[in-house]
Amino acid sequence: MSDRFTPVSQLGEFGLIDRMRDRLGENAPAGDLLCTIGDDAAVYRVSETTAHVVTADALIEGVHFERTFMPWGYLGRKAVAVNVSDVAAMNAQALYAVITMGLPRNVSVEMVDALYDGLRAGCEAYGIRLVGGDTTAAPQMTLSVTVVGEAPIDRITYRRGARPGDLLCVTGDVGAAYAGLQVLIEQQRAMRELGDAYEPDLSPYRRVIARQLTPAARTDVVADWARRAVRPRAVIDVSDGVASEVHHLCRASACGAVVHAAALPVDPETRAVADERMEDVDTFALFGGEDYELLFALDPADADRLAPRQFTVIGAFTGMDEGIVLQTPEGDALPLEAAGFSHFETDSD
Amino acid sequence: MSDRFTPVSQLGEFGLIDRMRDRLGENAPAGDLLCTIGDDAAVYRVSETTAHVVTADALIEGVHFERTFMPWGYLGRKAVAVNVSDVAAMNAQALYAVITMGLPRNVSVEMVDALYDGLRAGCEAYGIRLVGGDTTAAPQMTLSVTVVGEAPIDRITYRRGARPGDLLCVTGDVGAAYAGLQVLIEQQRAMRELGDAYEPDLSPYRRVIARQLTPAARTDVVADWARRAVRPRAVIDVSDGVASEVHHLCRASACGAVVHAAALPVDPETRAVADERMEDVDTFALFGGEDYELLFALDPADADRLAPRQFTVIGAFTGMDEGIVLQTPEGDALPLEAAGFSHFETDSD
Repeated sequence: MSDRFTPVSQLGEFGLIDRMRDRLGENAPAGDLLCTIGDDAAVYRVSETTAHVVTADALIEGVHFERTFMPWGYLGRKAVAVNVSDVAAMNAQALYAVITMGLPRNVSVEMVDALYDGLRAGCEAYGIRLVGGDTTAAPQMTLSVTVVGEAPIDRITYRRGARPGDLLCVTGDVGAAYAGLQVLIEQQRAMRELGDAYEPDLSPYRRVIARQLTPAARTDVVADWARRAVRPRAVIDVSDGVASEVHHLCRASACGAVVHAAALPVDPETRAVADERMEDVDTFALFGGEDYELLFALDPADADRLAPRQFTVIGAFTGMDEGIVLQTPEGDALPLEAAGFSHFETDSD
Repeated sequence: MSDRFTPVSQLGEFGLIDRMRDRLGENAPAGDLLCTIGDDAAVYRVSETTAHVVTADALIEGVHFERTFMPWGYLGRKAVAVNVSDVAAMNAQALYAVITMGLPRNVSVEMVDALYDGLRAGCEAYGIRLVGGDTTAAPQMTLSVTVVGEAPIDRITYRRGARPGDLLCVTGDVGAAYAGLQVLIEQQRAMRELGDAYEPDLSPYRRVIARQLTPAARTDVVADWARRAVRPRAVIDVSDGVASEVHHLCRASACGAVVHAAALPVDPETRAVADERMEDVDTFALFGGEDYELLFALDPADADRLAPRQFTVIGAFTGMDEGIVLQTPEGDALPLEAAGFSHFETDSD
């Protein structure tokens, strides 16, 4: 392969985003633009005291979902939720959604209706309005959602604010969406192999499947923080896995961190899925992704002011030279790799 | 085919948009939301006197462009321009762009760099900032651009404001982008058939090819209207062809219209392309699309206040019951069909 052709897989998703930022030249915030590429959303001032945030995510058939186990109603709902989650990760409130849709010719109007219903359900769940979009033909189903949100400028929270000594916290539990995906993939395989003879029993997995198909953005947490007048120092949402997001916060904040594996909040159902497959549930929790929980840096002085059942302290931020470390239940300290899920990278194991 | 399966091609693009609007339930403007699905962009208030507009468009390989005759640098530039054009059609000024990109694995980093450079050139051309986005793998190249713009609330112009007696006007000239597309398609065919023996001479077609590959949004016109304190009564941009856009304005404004074919502004190069192919240049002008000129309704009292060389009066708005009529050079009055270009509909000729 010549120097002139470098496949994008060599860069990976984050490499491409870095390259975009570099390639776009001087892209520093300026004027009303308060934050640009590299956080969960861009931020711009719209009045003396108020900022808007804007974020976009694409869901592509065969890459982010399979038609066979992602009913289109869920897909619409999920497409809204993942973008609202990015707005929540800025500590802001989502207002409006704009959607572009690419539909294969073999799609029926009934499928599109299910998708619209899902989009509507997603918008209603978060109190936002679907205000526009574009529908076009496409070889594969593609869905790109942009969400605009709002917050007082002094409430906006970036990835870059964590300081050594801050608590590393996560809302809810993690690894469940990945557990749900494993169950769905296995069910699909069994159905293909056994045909009509197969009678699926999904009841023991209801919760993890729901976390995969209909993830929820933690707008409730953002509202609660506002009520309690607590502002975390840095926030990111868990889309690519806790490990990857810890790396993002540390990189943006020029910090290190220690993560206590034993502290990772895991639902019993997630643990059961991992145990049945003789896999380590910590792997689900750290690298699974798609949980859409909020990972945040909290001033220890604020810890008592938050609802204790809403979050778990899973570690702490440290100095940058201390690196990013996983403390195992056995007491070992290992470097925590960022390796989350990347659609571009080739599986190497 | 059963009732349960209706292919999307039966609805077409505008049918799908109507269906989205219906399916999304009560979607009337409310609160700060001043305009929703059904105009060139959605409009929402951000302060006492200022509104933002937001619009999104997707470009998909094999549907909107072919990799073989759309260099990726042009593609990036065009993706920005078509969205800025929608903002211009609201009589607003574009500010920020957000981009989601789906990249096939066989794409090189060099191609992506060319795309980024094109996006940057597009942003610089219109003085806007690319503030965020999402890059992911995809089976086909897909590019979805969202642009946010701004205007004083009392300057925003909708599709719905035309009145009987208003002049029907268009900026620049029309049909050129379609002429350019014809030339490119024929060149490609000739190259395939003749191989190395073929020496293309594109110089007689430079202008129409440029109109197809690097269309320009008429932000200059919007700025000029502001300077002259003229506000058209209704505006739309010509993306699907003059005929289709006249129908949109008439439908939104509950008007009819008469279009004088002889008045359609056509560049000599566009006419030459049509003549060489023994086709009617009016067909290019009315149904070609992708011109990204502005089609607008003007109070006759304002006509003298605009720069005369910037626009052409191609007809007038009439009462709704008079229908939408094409006046031919021979003096006939024919019903003007909306039939622009639709990616969903099957060619029937």
